[in-house]
Amino acid sequence: MPEPVKFYFDFSSPYSYFASFKIDETCEGLGREVSWRPFLLGALFKITGAQPLNTVPMKGEYCENDWQRLGRYMNVPWTMPEAFPIATQATARTFYWLHDQDPALAKKFAKEAFMTYFGRGQDISSVDAVAELAAPLGVDHAALQAALSDDKIKQRLKDETQSAIDVGVFGAPYFIVDGEGIWGSDRMWMIRRWIERGGW
Amino acid sequence: MPEPVKFYFDFSSPYSYFASFKIDETCEGLGREVSWRPFLLGALFKITGAQPLNTVPMKGEYCENDWQRLGRYMNVPWTMPEAFPIATQATARTFYWLHDQDPALAKKFAKEAFMTYFGRGQDISSVDAVAELAAPLGVDHAALQAALSDDKIKQRLKDETQSAIDVGVFGAPYFIVDGEGIWGSDRMWMIRRWIERGGW
Repeated sequence: MPEPVKFYFDFSSPYSYFASFKIDETCEGLGREVSWRPFLLGALFKITGAQPLNTVPMKGEYCENDWQRLGRYMNVPWTMPEAFPIATQATARTFYWLHDQDPALAKKFAKEAFMTYFGRGQDISSVDAVAELAAPLGVDHAALQAALSDDKIKQRLKDETQSAIDVGVFGAPYFIVDGEGIWGSDRMWMIRRWIERGGW
Repeated sequence: MPEPVKFYFDFSSPYSYFASFKIDETCEGLGREVSWRPFLLGALFKITGAQPLNTVPMKGEYCENDWQRLGRYMNVPWTMPEAFPIATQATARTFYWLHDQDPALAKKFAKEAFMTYFGRGQDISSVDAVAELAAPLGVDHAALQAALSDDKIKQRLKDETQSAIDVGVFGAPYFIVDGEGIWGSDRMWMIRRWIERGGW
């Protein structure tokens, strides 16, 4: 059984949002599972010196136009959120909490979180906002709130972020296929090629 | 007659090197000329705060691997130059000097400069190095040397760089198709789509 492809992302990363629509179908047609791994991009930015894309002179304006046209091209909803970027601790912790109970549910939650934030432009940084978007998936508000205030889940997200850094993840989305790092939503073709060829 | 696609690049940009192999055939099959426009990336970096890719923590190592695998994938020579990045004033000024006499010769020169630097890993920053690589194209060493010491050609490159900045170029390679900016060697497909569809 080949290793799953790892999909590292931050819920506040527009290019991760676009990649999230394609990564599963790209890999599953090639016999690979995909392991979704949210982490905190902010921790990485401290190492690389990067800034949120929309705040970089010139590049910021370019990216806002690019996200709009990618939405049209991919035929997926795109709404530039007023709150951007946001803290994604609550969303990412919820993901791992759900993942330990039911990986498929965690993935559904992640898709719903992305759609709420970038599809409809709604802030998902608060625990209440996360609970609200998770409710239709059968996630209990009180249980979620209790889980998120537990130090264990806080540590878990720290550990996941550190693991990502340890394997070389420096941006999002970032994919690892059999140890090979591939960065960016523009490189889905490279994942496919790697799996088909087993390298270059 | 539709406007040419503008291809903005710096001779010290690896992703521009890779794009240079594909931009002409991508556009010409769609009935578009390509206007090659070297500029000085360093002037932009002062605005955007960007750093040479190989000096960014984590991203630097990733990119060095990425350039190797892109070379293999595209079946084009790749040698990481010991001197990187380099000053590209002499190369870019030579390009514009030749361009004013013979645009086709300027493009041939640009391809030879890229091949010398990234294909064979040889430093092309000095006037002598530029003269040497231009000689087989029939460019006279003394005439080149005289041209490059003229203030007019220095001003020309400054103006070209400022024009690039004025139209929003913030990195390289950067393409402009009918006013629409498209950044990166991963986005050649987007140029094609824009031309075929006349937009999104």
